[in-house]
Amino acid sequence: MPSRYLNFRCSVPWLILFLETLFLIRLFFCFPVVGDTYSLSNFYPAFQDVNHMVIFGFGFFLMVLRRYGFSSTGLNFLLIVLGVQCSVLVEDLFVFLGVQENEGGMKSLAKAMVSMTAVAISTGAVLGKANPVQLIVMSLVELIIFYVSRCVNRTFLQVPDNLTLMHVHLFGAYFGVAVTSRFPEPPPGLDKNRSTPKSDLFSMLGTVFVWVFWPSFNSILAESKAEAVLNSYFALAVSAVAAFMLSALTSKDGKFRMTHIHSAVLAGGVTISYTAHSIQHPWIAMILGLLGSVITVLGSHCLQRCFNPAFKLQDTSGVHFTFGLPAVLGAVAAVVLCVLKKGISTQWNNLSSLGYLIFVDIGAFCQTISTALITGLITGLILNFKLLKTVHVSKYFDDQFYWEFPHLSVGF
Amino acid sequence: MPSRYLNFRCSVPWLILFLETLFLIRLFFCFPVVGDTYSLSNFYPAFQDVNHMVIFGFGFFLMVLRRYGFSSTGLNFLLIVLGVQCSVLVEDLFVFLGVQENEGGMKSLAKAMVSMTAVAISTGAVLGKANPVQLIVMSLVELIIFYVSRCVNRTFLQVPDNLTLMHVHLFGAYFGVAVTSRFPEPPPGLDKNRSTPKSDLFSMLGTVFVWVFWPSFNSILAESKAEAVLNSYFALAVSAVAAFMLSALTSKDGKFRMTHIHSAVLAGGVTISYTAHSIQHPWIAMILGLLGSVITVLGSHCLQRCFNPAFKLQDTSGVHFTFGLPAVLGAVAAVVLCVLKKGISTQWNNLSSLGYLIFVDIGAFCQTISTALITGLITGLILNFKLLKTVHVSKYFDDQFYWEFPHLSVGF
Amino acid sequence: MPSRYLNFRCSVPWLILFLETLFLIRLFFCFPVVGDTYSLSNFYPAFQDVNHMVIFGFGFFLMVLRRYGFSSTGLNFLLIVLGVQCSVLVEDLFVFLGVQENEGGMKSLAKAMVSMTAVAISTGAVLGKANPVQLIVMSLVELIIFYVSRCVNRTFLQVPDNLTLMHVHLFGAYFGVAVTSRFPEPPPGLDKNRSTPKSDLFSMLGTVFVWVFWPSFNSILAESKAEAVLNSYFALAVSAVAAFMLSALTSKDGKFRMTHIHSAVLAGGVTISYTAHSIQHPWIAMILGLLGSVITVLGSHCLQRCFNPAFKLQDTSGVHFTFGLPAVLGAVAAVVLCVLKKGISTQWNNLSSLGYLIFVDIGAFCQTISTALITGLITGLILNFKLLKTVHVSKYFDDQFYWEFPHLSVGF
Repeated sequence: MPSRYLNFRCSVPWLILFLETLFLIRLFFCFPVVGDTYSLSNFYPAFQDVNHMVIFGFGFFLMVLRRYGFSSTGLNFLLIVLGVQCSVLVEDLFVFLGVQENEGGMKSLAKAMVSMTAVAISTGAVLGKANPVQLIVMSLVELIIFYVSRCVNRTFLQVPDNLTLMHVHLFGAYFGVAVTSRFPEPPPGLDKNRSTPKSDLFSMLGTVFVWVFWPSFNSILAESKAEAVLNSYFALAVSAVAAFMLSALTSKDGKFRMTHIHSAVLAGGVTISYTAHSIQHPWIAMILGLLGSVITVLGSHCLQRCFNPAFKLQDTSGVHFTFGLPAVLGAVAAVVLCVLKKGISTQWNNLSSLGYLIFVDIGAFCQTISTALITGLITGLILNFKLLKTVHVSKYFDDQFYWEFPHLSVGF
Repeated sequence: MPSRYLNFRCSVPWLILFLETLFLIRLFFCFPVVGDTYSLSNFYPAFQDVNHMVIFGFGFFLMVLRRYGFSSTGLNFLLIVLGVQCSVLVEDLFVFLGVQENEGGMKSLAKAMVSMTAVAISTGAVLGKANPVQLIVMSLVELIIFYVSRCVNRTFLQVPDNLTLMHVHLFGAYFGVAVTSRFPEPPPGLDKNRSTPKSDLFSMLGTVFVWVFWPSFNSILAESKAEAVLNSYFALAVSAVAAFMLSALTSKDGKFRMTHIHSAVLAGGVTISYTAHSIQHPWIAMILGLLGSVITVLGSHCLQRCFNPAFKLQDTSGVHFTFGLPAVLGAVAAVVLCVLKKGISTQWNNLSSLGYLIFVDIGAFCQTISTALITGLITGLILNFKLLKTVHVSKYFDDQFYWEFPHLSVGF
Repeated sequence: MPSRYLNFRCSVPWLILFLETLFLIRLFFCFPVVGDTYSLSNFYPAFQDVNHMVIFGFGFFLMVLRRYGFSSTGLNFLLIVLGVQCSVLVEDLFVFLGVQENEGGMKSLAKAMVSMTAVAISTGAVLGKANPVQLIVMSLVELIIFYVSRCVNRTFLQVPDNLTLMHVHLFGAYFGVAVTSRFPEPPPGLDKNRSTPKSDLFSMLGTVFVWVFWPSFNSILAESKAEAVLNSYFALAVSAVAAFMLSALTSKDGKFRMTHIHSAVLAGGVTISYTAHSIQHPWIAMILGLLGSVITVLGSHCLQRCFNPAFKLQDTSGVHFTFGLPAVLGAVAAVVLCVLKKGISTQWNNLSSLGYLIFVDIGAFCQTISTALITGLITGLILNFKLLKTVHVSKYFDDQFYWEFPHLSVGF
């Protein structure tokens, strides 16, 4: 099918060029005051950690498929770098519309990088099924909707800015799941969507990287950094240990299963993300980490056996149970902890204020998840238009469709 | 042997669950004052470096066996994360018993992470021979004994706290050697305990990581950080260069041997660990780095040809010469340098004070090494009880015994 | 050819030993005042980033050949570590001669590490063709000449010290190209100079590492760090995106080509290196990043089709278009930007001063590039003397010539 191969030349480069021109024009005409752009350099180490985690860590974390290593790392790199620039553009637009303050410089970039995690997570759901054009369109749409969803939470529900940003896992996972549900299922005989020991090893490398940098990720915008870092570390440590425990408990013959480890070691970090800065006792963080790990491992069994076949969706790298379920748990835990704290401090007298608090928190959560699901479904439908050159199911999960292989076929 | 496979389900998860419950109870009932736990956040970058080095670096450093990649990284990860939590528990107990001050927060975690290096080193000695239950028991026992040994050094021999922590390589290596001597030898025909070019490459990746972060490791608790960092860097640089030199000198045909490089590039960092903060001239650090490299490469030849066959012990990743011998050299060098410094400053008049100094330093060294050897032998005996489901020698060095391999057998 | 194998034992170790003795003697006799050596510890994080980038990042970045993985990482490690020590020695000599101020400590090491990038780049040009002796001699000669060239720029052309250091890519690339032109070409049938998907993946790993740490590299000696970091990041982001765009535009079938990605994602960082600290608008940085990427991808096609066959030179990892061309572009851009800035501020009145400025900047650029080319040619001639045991073309690109392979031949 030479025509199918050729088509990317007429779409990917021009799409990228159009976007880059847009970024340049924006920066040329309406760039902020210079002092604003180049400031806050003491933010650099934290930004560097998150940058490293998202570009290197997630790139290799996603390398779970046998024949999709180049695309996993390469396209993740492309989407993140393109998205960060787009993110700065969107933020500028919001500042222009008056719904957000101008921050500029390193902090703006750091927030853009955190937002890109949503795209990295959604990419995991459609890994190997979407072509580069679809991925670029998806990431731009997702980014804009995530900014709108955050803006709604901030403006109408008075959620603090750094907390709206922590909805990134929830949004990314459910947006990805909704998008992937609109893609046709691969035929059952296809063996390219399996992993090999080598791809698992590279994925392990990425997972450990993401794990190590997660406390920096959770604390990057927190006001009480020490709490955020330590609670994140405790939650991650417990969820890593629990991942091994639950893997041995639930798998055949009591062996460890690599996919459990991949997904469950990170669950603690996702679960704690809303509450890391406010928890005052390490044991609460540890229990959240444990519960996050439990829900991930049990979720992976339930979803893969019941939910996914029922809805005919294939979540390639399992982002629903890796990021979605722990994020739901974390949001619920945030409400419970907040209510308990306020309730105890007011001795359960001011129940109407408590009710309002619950309403707001649950409102923010429901708004985020429903926005993610609805817009994800719509995006999924749009992505499957003929115009975007959908990939045939027989060509799923294969690097050779997007990358030149000048080398001998040494069998990756 | 389905019964052998099944047994881990009845042991590993419950052991982990028991430990986690213990940690939770401890943190719930006797957690320290809040201000104590969440403090010292400026310690975070150094902690992050050591965290990265121990979890990522050592995980891949240990990946020297052909068919043991998952276990090398995965089980190292499990042991470190479990051990850090256990370490906090043990420290709490020591504070409760009044033999140690309460530090809390990041600093306590950083010290726990440094202590875990002992476990990572010992794991290298029994790599591929011990099952996960044995490894968990070994790491807990080792950790507790290391804390006791440090406490003895600190209390009775007045060694400063940060120096007792630097006995970690010495303790880890000799404890590991003693434990591995109690394991049966693999049959001579077994080829699974070899490396492949690919496993060597991953191991090189881990080694470079450990090498890069070593100055952070040596300086994490030092009072004069600049000295500790620079001396460590000089020693590491010289030992890396010397590793290549000695490898070409001692191997057949004058080629480089990867195992020499793996072990000898780190020797300088181990040798300098006791004295990095106090050396005043870079050339002393460089000579120590050179000597560390020499003793490692010569030691690897002597030990593998004479010592190991004589004692029928098999030190899988060579921790005896990688960490043990340079640590002995470093301890001796510390005594010599200390005596020279005091002697010169007092013009060799106060010989009785000098004698006491030598006695104390050598005492600390002998106490550490003999404790490591004796408790290591006992631990090795305990680990080979039937109860802990020892692995049969024919099943040594194989991931398939501990990990599910759902993928096709693509031959890792 | 046993005699050819044996020869390295009589050369490499003694060469290294001689150099190490020299370093020790220098540090023993004429070490600077102690306070000077151990100072500026707040420089450590930036130094650590560059250290990590050069040793780990470049080591894996160079791993593009099928059967040359050990040598790519191992020999890069050896050369960098040896060169850093040599660099300190050379700097000491310059201080002794009075042409440079004594800085000492961490800053001196950091500058040495930045200088070593030149050697890492030149190594890429002769990758797989030079034996360890040739590489060591080359790196020492290159280092000394680079210091002399910097000194000329600083003394006679009044270029600030941190800018002379940023000529490192230009110098390294053209020195490497000149050296490699003196090596005989490999026979056309040789397939060992190809990459495999696996080597490409490791190379991608190294590239992402280098990319992530590049802003630290560009800002390590800059006075206005915030500008340097942000401009570098913008330029790198745009060049990464443009690399994908141009790769799809220029390759067959509109697919991505891994070698384009490897080389062009870094082009922005190279292009911006002279001007990162002084650019006041992000869009200028972005345009420079875009142009850098364009010149790299177009250059890779032109050079490989026309230039290289015409001059019969083989630039193994393509350093000419990866580092050379963007560095030329960056130098030209620096002149243009500087002239525009001065011209606008003086309203184009003081044309003679402008002319002098142009003369100085172009002079520095021409001096660096011509020194690199001429001394590179001479070094290339010297390296091919019989004395240095040149490798026969049939033995090019092969690890087995320099490394012991005790493992079974599992086919790397």
